[in-house]
Amino acid sequence: MNKKLVFHVIGKLLCAVSLMLIAPMIVSIIYTEQSWWSFGVTAVISLALGILLLKITKGFSRVIYAKEGFAIVSLSWITVSLIGSLPFIISKEIPSFADAFFESVSGYTTTGASILNNVEKLSHGMLFWRSFNHWIGGMGVLVFMLAFVSSITDRSIHILRAEMPGPIVGKLAPRSKDTSKVLYIIYIVLTVSQIVMLCCGDMNLFESIIHSFGTAGTGGFGIKSDSIASYSSYSQWVITAFMFIFGINFNVFYLFILKRFKAAIKSSELAVYTLITVFSIIIISFDISHLFNNLSDTIRTSAFQVVSITTTTGFSSVDFNLWPSLSKSILTVLMFIGACAGSTAGGFKMSRVVIVFKMISNEIKKMIHPRSVSTVKFEGKDVDENTQRSVTSYFAIYFVCILIIFMLISLEPFDFETNFTATVSCFNNVGPGMSAVGPMSSYAEYSVFSKILLSFAMLLGRLEIFPILIAFIPSTWRKR
Amino acid sequence: MNKKLVFHVIGKLLCAVSLMLIAPMIVSIIYTEQSWWSFGVTAVISLALGILLLKITKGFSRVIYAKEGFAIVSLSWITVSLIGSLPFIISKEIPSFADAFFESVSGYTTTGASILNNVEKLSHGMLFWRSFNHWIGGMGVLVFMLAFVSSITDRSIHILRAEMPGPIVGKLAPRSKDTSKVLYIIYIVLTVSQIVMLCCGDMNLFESIIHSFGTAGTGGFGIKSDSIASYSSYSQWVITAFMFIFGINFNVFYLFILKRFKAAIKSSELAVYTLITVFSIIIISFDISHLFNNLSDTIRTSAFQVVSITTTTGFSSVDFNLWPSLSKSILTVLMFIGACAGSTAGGFKMSRVVIVFKMISNEIKKMIHPRSVSTVKFEGKDVDENTQRSVTSYFAIYFVCILIIFMLISLEPFDFETNFTATVSCFNNVGPGMSAVGPMSSYAEYSVFSKILLSFAMLLGRLEIFPILIAFIPSTWRKR
Repeated sequence: MNKKLVFHVIGKLLCAVSLMLIAPMIVSIIYTEQSWWSFGVTAVISLALGILLLKITKGFSRVIYAKEGFAIVSLSWITVSLIGSLPFIISKEIPSFADAFFESVSGYTTTGASILNNVEKLSHGMLFWRSFNHWIGGMGVLVFMLAFVSSITDRSIHILRAEMPGPIVGKLAPRSKDTSKVLYIIYIVLTVSQIVMLCCGDMNLFESIIHSFGTAGTGGFGIKSDSIASYSSYSQWVITAFMFIFGINFNVFYLFILKRFKAAIKSSELAVYTLITVFSIIIISFDISHLFNNLSDTIRTSAFQVVSITTTTGFSSVDFNLWPSLSKSILTVLMFIGACAGSTAGGFKMSRVVIVFKMISNEIKKMIHPRSVSTVKFEGKDVDENTQRSVTSYFAIYFVCILIIFMLISLEPFDFETNFTATVSCFNNVGPGMSAVGPMSSYAEYSVFSKILLSFAMLLGRLEIFPILIAFIPSTWRKR
Repeated sequence: MNKKLVFHVIGKLLCAVSLMLIAPMIVSIIYTEQSWWSFGVTAVISLALGILLLKITKGFSRVIYAKEGFAIVSLSWITVSLIGSLPFIISKEIPSFADAFFESVSGYTTTGASILNNVEKLSHGMLFWRSFNHWIGGMGVLVFMLAFVSSITDRSIHILRAEMPGPIVGKLAPRSKDTSKVLYIIYIVLTVSQIVMLCCGDMNLFESIIHSFGTAGTGGFGIKSDSIASYSSYSQWVITAFMFIFGINFNVFYLFILKRFKAAIKSSELAVYTLITVFSIIIISFDISHLFNNLSDTIRTSAFQVVSITTTTGFSSVDFNLWPSLSKSILTVLMFIGACAGSTAGGFKMSRVVIVFKMISNEIKKMIHPRSVSTVKFEGKDVDENTQRSVTSYFAIYFVCILIIFMLISLEPFDFETNFTATVSCFNNVGPGMSAVGPMSSYAEYSVFSKILLSFAMLLGRLEIFPILIAFIPSTWRKR
């Protein structure tokens, strides 16, 4: 293990975080809030630690292998989450470490689960910081970092592979500085578009920025305890549309930029994503129609909630915890699925769902006709044995992790539905669960142990399990 | 598709069922109950249908492929379940078809889920018939049938493969008539041993037989609404021991018969099965200790419930629905796992769990050292790519089925815990769930739709999904 390189990158990251902290500090100053200095102190701490690490790791070797990549990714997320929790603690707005860490991890992993019962009490600076974390986390701290980390090595693909959500990194080749630039530009253009559109409605600039950050990162932190419920239909539809857009594989946008419209629209992942979304909206609209006075409210609410959950954003426009069982269980299953690979969404990812279903159908064909030869195709290409094995391995470890975390969280005296959906929601980076962790409640009642456990679950889910596991295996850190 | 062959086998099966019906008839006559004639009428119907099918299918070809095997297995289970429900309906002891079919499927699939709120109302004949179905179902109607079905073809391995639970049929070679004879003998000897041991306690002969049938098939139908709770500690320990025994891979007993004790004890599946069981008993004992006055009650109850659930038997000695969250979620996870392959238990099976964990650890190794070559070993042998793929495919389809059935059952207005555990419990052939379908409740409140759906779930789980799916694909039935 090339430890020096790993910590060199973390050092650079810490310096970057200290720069990022300037943004919420400015917000605090604009709103003449006391909390500005907590960002300042954190920035100084982060910068000092960063410079220290850069000094210690001078003369690092540029040799990087897969395990260094995994270690960098895992440590980066843990480091930024730790640093990110400091402003909450220093300002005493969230005095407990476990709470502040949970909130910070929830931000960077774009989960949006909160331990705050009364989010309105936070200062504007802190609200901005939470949502800004979503936005940074959305594209991945490391993809974000890639632009300058890649300068130290051309093996940055190892980091990228560990970072990019989904089984197929995509066709955005060449995967290097240029790739990340394209991703940023798409990401920034979409975010700005949403801010502009929200400003045209009943949100002021601050609200528009916060909710656009939450949408872009598919995070879901808002500024009100009832999330989006009190905003106009217009704002809700705009957010619905952008949540759906940020759940699409960014390759599709890239193909649009290249004017390869046919190829973009032919994406089978996009087709399945759209179908599942529309189908769920229709079923839930029927199921909840008796709760609303007119069709447009029914459809808007159903569409908002379905898109919010399947993209793992987690905004809510209504307390869906009070909905009938069918709607609740559809939403729970959507939490597992998630949106497209190569988007900012969490979950198992549509592309994997498609591949798993095709593999199952292939297996059935082989059983009926043992001598037939058939391959699994995805997006017009054969899925090779390695990818198939990695998808099914991921499927296995994914459910194993969920069941283990569920058992551990059951040390809490909450009901089955609360503990189960808390696990599923955090692991898939959604945010709200059902029952006592429903959209109008919070994770405040959980013990310190459970908050740390759920923070770990969010990290596991966001980094697709393996990097975190590998970073925690002692043999990873041994010398060659 | 060789339809004639398929229906010829079903014809033979119907004749066999008519013979089986003599047993409960005798019980009814001994207890001078009115219900004896309902068994008689059913036997006549079954025999008539059987002879009719045998006549129609005269001159069938002996060519059998995998899909014929799957069709035979699926149709056999559905046929015996339909015929098995007739005595309940004819005697009017369970007048509704959906209820009677549910009870019959629950019997043959060795699930033990019941729609009866008051099982004490059933006649002795019906109680015997329910549990006898467990016993027959336990080793599989088809393995049971093999002894005479195999006479028509030496390709009976296709049927056996569809039938035998678990990824590895086992080393009981040669897999033919001889195999099934060995299996029967072990099964019968163990059942008789249990009957004798239970008779030594506070159970009369009838009770001993009923509970031994329920144990041997890992079914769980009892004769009291509180299941085993009112019997002595001695009886509970005997049942615990035999539940554990019937959850062991029958290969192990076969090795014992061959006096290859070392090989038998070296089974890694047995080791994991024992470890998981003991570990769960210890954790749950701690978790529930405050509910009992002394240690021996605590351990007995914990051991009974853990073994009952992990072997997917479903007897209960206490209302574990009232236990703390941790114990309940451990029991729920045990429902998924099930006991050993090659036993009468349902669930995902220990051997698959072991293979999945080894595959995951292998995958992690490959990520850290991409160029390393490592294989997955199980029971001292390399697990080939095909077996690995079939295990992971099964894992995938297993969870996909559970999630789909869970969504459909959520049309019911029950709470999350009820619907979720009802699905998991029926699919894994356990029996009781939690909340409204807890051990002291029943499935009576579910709608007709849900009862049929859960019956289907029990069949899917018992036959390990693929045979049922394949039998329901229209192309299976087309002419070559």
